[in-house]
Amino acid sequence: MKRFEDLSPSLRCIMTPGPVEVDPRVLRAMSFPVLGQFDPEFTSIMNETMGMLRELFATSNQWAYPVDGTSRSGIEAAMVSLIAPGDRVLIPIYGRFGHLLHEIAERCGAEVHTMEKTWGSVFDKEEIIAEMRRVKPDVVAMVHGETSTGRLQPLEGIGQACREMDALLIVDAVATIGGVPVETDAWQLDAVIGGTQKCLSVPSGMAPITYNKRAEEKLLSRKRVERGLRTGDDGADDIAVVRSNYFDLGMLQDYWSPLRLNHHTEMTSMLYALREGLRLVLEEGLEARFARHRLHERALVAGLEAMGLEQYGDPGCKMPMVTCVAIPDGVDGESVRTMLLDSFGIEIASSFGPLKGKIWRIGTMGFSCRGNNVLRVLGALEAALLRHGCRLPAGLGVQAALDVYEQA
Amino acid sequence: MKRFEDLSPSLRCIMTPGPVEVDPRVLRAMSFPVLGQFDPEFTSIMNETMGMLRELFATSNQWAYPVDGTSRSGIEAAMVSLIAPGDRVLIPIYGRFGHLLHEIAERCGAEVHTMEKTWGSVFDKEEIIAEMRRVKPDVVAMVHGETSTGRLQPLEGIGQACREMDALLIVDAVATIGGVPVETDAWQLDAVIGGTQKCLSVPSGMAPITYNKRAEEKLLSRKRVERGLRTGDDGADDIAVVRSNYFDLGMLQDYWSPLRLNHHTEMTSMLYALREGLRLVLEEGLEARFARHRLHERALVAGLEAMGLEQYGDPGCKMPMVTCVAIPDGVDGESVRTMLLDSFGIEIASSFGPLKGKIWRIGTMGFSCRGNNVLRVLGALEAALLRHGCRLPAGLGVQAALDVYEQA
Repeated sequence: MKRFEDLSPSLRCIMTPGPVEVDPRVLRAMSFPVLGQFDPEFTSIMNETMGMLRELFATSNQWAYPVDGTSRSGIEAAMVSLIAPGDRVLIPIYGRFGHLLHEIAERCGAEVHTMEKTWGSVFDKEEIIAEMRRVKPDVVAMVHGETSTGRLQPLEGIGQACREMDALLIVDAVATIGGVPVETDAWQLDAVIGGTQKCLSVPSGMAPITYNKRAEEKLLSRKRVERGLRTGDDGADDIAVVRSNYFDLGMLQDYWSPLRLNHHTEMTSMLYALREGLRLVLEEGLEARFARHRLHERALVAGLEAMGLEQYGDPGCKMPMVTCVAIPDGVDGESVRTMLLDSFGIEIASSFGPLKGKIWRIGTMGFSCRGNNVLRVLGALEAALLRHGCRLPAGLGVQAALDVYEQA
Repeated sequence: MKRFEDLSPSLRCIMTPGPVEVDPRVLRAMSFPVLGQFDPEFTSIMNETMGMLRELFATSNQWAYPVDGTSRSGIEAAMVSLIAPGDRVLIPIYGRFGHLLHEIAERCGAEVHTMEKTWGSVFDKEEIIAEMRRVKPDVVAMVHGETSTGRLQPLEGIGQACREMDALLIVDAVATIGGVPVETDAWQLDAVIGGTQKCLSVPSGMAPITYNKRAEEKLLSRKRVERGLRTGDDGADDIAVVRSNYFDLGMLQDYWSPLRLNHHTEMTSMLYALREGLRLVLEEGLEARFARHRLHERALVAGLEAMGLEQYGDPGCKMPMVTCVAIPDGVDGESVRTMLLDSFGIEIASSFGPLKGKIWRIGTMGFSCRGNNVLRVLGALEAALLRHGCRLPAGLGVQAALDVYEQA
């Protein structure tokens, strides 16, 4: 007697800011049999993945490995390991995920200072640097790409200012890694967190991070070997020990180092997926991948404009992989989204907080970022809007996108 | 130009206390295309999985869902959510993973009281209850099955004592869930954490947990809606807020409830795997699955005894799914393990701390727990020991196991 049906998820066209569609090669990688966590074949896959992550993050840092959890696990690991209770932390906020950094820093016991920008725009670096001079933070934490508003915060110059003021810079690049340049070394970022289920197009479940010597120094000052594994007197009790065991990067790096000091059991199948996803990224080439994201953004935006839809937010700081569209007056945005999903098999996103019910967010990320998907979403959106009584110039959206592709 | 090879892990016979082999049905489930996290098809998979987990944990608790991380993420989530800084926590320790509970509780800011038992044995419940009377803990945290020593701690009576003394009981059932009875309701356990990569035979990456109304009450008293998602004044600042955002069960349950309040992005492919693994468990039936673990343990132990190998630890509290074998005098245990892996494709485990180099641990867990695996490991271990100069009665191990199977 079968009490539960066979798994058979529908095939979706996922045009959200994540999670997005996954390349069949990555899906297939997860179906390989597992290896033991200390099997030399497995530890060599771990090492290979670290090498690939260094390329992805454009860094020569020793440490580049995934934290075993969804994207925010990587953010929390970096913050709880690098922020000691009482540390002064400056957080520039320009959307929902800046608030998340605030929340996490607070839970780390930090003295948090925030500065806020109206949603839809980003900061000038001078504003941030001026505030750093005033606050004198131990840590600055900020979001590179805010999927809640579709804005991209330029980071150049902030890292240098952090070094001059002896602060660490933690960057949430969850939504941008693999889609636009994230120059860890060139921009002097001390710790960077990437996401898997966005421009990398690997299922949600791992959070690749990297951090440099400056960050490691702070980690090591707070480090203690785990009870039950200690052999000597390496367990000094007079340090501000990291408030989490799972997220203690000092322990994680011992597990990812040749020491292989037992911590968690690495997520075997997810690591297979991450390795295959990174292989695809590096085979395509980072520059070509960034150009692809820009091309499909151009086609999508041309189509939306031809349909007479308005974009939300300051165009000067738009993320190429997220396009925010104002929901036309009188249209029930959720009803359109439901029709897109139920009738066309296409998912687009709504937004959070002040933007709820006001905009749709259309993602063009990673494997989902391809011409046939862009044409499909434009055609379906036009049809759904017509069906909702919107007056649109029929047919123009898809034609405008085709024009972009023909001229590319 | 291919800079990285195709993934092609060897097919291993994994006879460790986890991670273990994964049923091809579970591996296949991970290769299905992903769904968006709020796609109704996906949220219905989430709900189905909760129902299956309730059966697995033998509970009518409302809350039974996976934490998105490896097993210790579930342990940390339960502890950081249920232990407020300053709480008195009693931890009976009889192996490595008891020390881990100590470590995590300490990092939660608890006043930790421990009691220790010589490795290889477990506690009488009266010892624990007497210590509870003395310490008056807010929380008791203990391990159900210690894979480091292969011992099983009886839990009956402890839950009742916790209720009488108004303490919460948190149980680490990572290694036992799906292999021996874990009676959440009957034993009055307040929070239980299971593991995926052991007797459930799902790849490492999720930590199923369950907790009851008593636990929930404590969670809710510490709850706050996330910054960036708040709409009203639900953000009171005068409570002992959970020190983690990622592991705040109050937030996780809002995400797993019909509210679907956005937190992390659920691990799509891992959830597919967990659902399929649970389906296999429930199709087999819990009682039949427990009986299977006992049968293959009997065959393995009969074979090891026929080979003249000695078991480690008190036989009265042995875990059926982990058999600890004393490494014969003069034999290099690591050299034997390497030969098993390299020549036979079989992995068995060493141990930690005081047992390092003294015992091997052979697992018979979940999908790895089958007759052909038991016969294979007995034959290969005999051959490897002969090859290492041990004097053994050749052929008897496999014959003794076959006797057990014929009489079953």
